[in-house]
Amino acid sequence: MEVLGDAWSLIVLRDIVFGGRRHFRELLAGNDEGIASNVLASRLRNLVDNELLTRDGATRGQRATYSLTEAGIQTVPVMVALGTWGMHHRPTSHALTVRARILAESPDLVDDLIDQLREIHLGVPRPHPERPLASARLQQAFEAAMEASGP
Amino acid sequence: MEVLGDAWSLIVLRDIVFGGRRHFRELLAGNDEGIASNVLASRLRNLVDNELLTRDGATRGQRATYSLTEAGIQTVPVMVALGTWGMHHRPTSHALTVRARILAESPDLVDDLIDQLREIHLGVPRPHPERPLASARLQQAFEAAMEASGP
Repeated sequence: MEVLGDAWSLIVLRDIVFGGRRHFRELLAGNDEGIASNVLASRLRNLVDNELLTRDGATRGQRATYSLTEAGIQTVPVMVALGTWGMHHRPTSHALTVRARILAESPDLVDDLIDQLREIHLGVPRPHPERPLASARLQQAFEAAMEASGP
Repeated sequence: MEVLGDAWSLIVLRDIVFGGRRHFRELLAGNDEGIASNVLASRLRNLVDNELLTRDGATRGQRATYSLTEAGIQTVPVMVALGTWGMHHRPTSHALTVRARILAESPDLVDDLIDQLREIHLGVPRPHPERPLASARLQQAFEAAMEASGP
């Protein structure tokens, strides 16, 4: 709880997992909650120190890339549980509710997303390369659900 | 995440759910992490404001009782997911690992624990009153596992 019991750390992990962002500037510019630059820097440092992320060896001034560790990837089920809870018990946007519902109802998709993250971040080949990418399936299910629910 | 992304709030909820504590003094005295009195007071207020807890109408100086709401009870799966993650990816005590494993491997026990919490906190009768209490089954499984793993 000391590591994951921090809203900004979870938000940064979520943006890496579901937003595919790996660089400081993308994480800063793409964050919906408007995370401040110094908060993002401190949370990334904290996540690296706690071994949920690694940072490649880019020296100062270069564009460092962050990668999830296995412990970082395994926060996905925690985020799915949090999303399921929020969908039922918090006022939230329609888009977030739709995404949370897809993940809550598709344990196989979550498993494949974990495998996809292992391939991207750890270089471990996916065990089911014949299946379309989990990220693409999530996006497709999301668009279909948004369309079905009207404009 | 604004509500649950706070380590102390999660710890207070955990002590209410798994420790059966309902009063300020019990929560303060029984907390393993040594929560400070002012931190406990602010987190309880925050959990009431966010409708995860209700506080009975005891006036100042009286011994108020806190009850979980349905939204508070539904944080149990989030806590189980967090416990499963911590068991694999954090240094933690043997006792905590044993408890987390029992919960991770027993979805039925978690469901019955949720029903038991609804009975205690919301007055909703358990749908399976013929089954032994989930809290007792958890305690029994815990003691058996601790005994099996030796002194």
